[in-house]
Amino acid sequence: MKVRVAVSLKDGVLDPQGKAISHALHVLEFPEVQGVRVGKIIELEVGESDPEYVVQRARRMAESLLANQVIEDFTVEIVK
Amino acid sequence: MKVRVAVSLKDGVLDPQGKAISHALHVLEFPEVQGVRVGKIIELEVGESDPEYVVQRARRMAESLLANQVIEDFTVEIVK
Repeated sequence: MKVRVAVSLKDGVLDPQGKAISHALHVLEFPEVQGVRVGKIIELEVGESDPEYVVQRARRMAESLLANQVIEDFTVEIVK
Repeated sequence: MKVRVAVSLKDGVLDPQGKAISHALHVLEFPEVQGVRVGKIIELEVGESDPEYVVQRARRMAESLLANQVIEDFTVEIVK
């Protein structure tokens, strides 16, 4: 089964990567860009078949490794 | 308007970051993990209101900066 963990910076946390991309897009003549936020998508292939168990375990993986919960939020969803 | 560009490695391209995460998850006692693929989510706030135009421009941004089309694929969607 495949599960997807999306990790994004919490609102209000400075995003230097986003700022750099925004600046580069302006240089490349995309003036309409007003803001950029960058996050991660981590797709996990797991050898389990119970969706509830898989989501619960993926949450534990996010809490212990995949997301820095001081500055990041995460969501977990099963990939159909 | 907000538009989301999801960038992911093409199938068959080695994902060293995914391998490192997979190894770390095994060490942290998540043995069910069989594979990990890592991608990026770039959310752009743009000062335009025509969804078709916004998607077309976001595709151009992805082609020129956000995705390395030799090894990466991307999708573009408007964020409701």
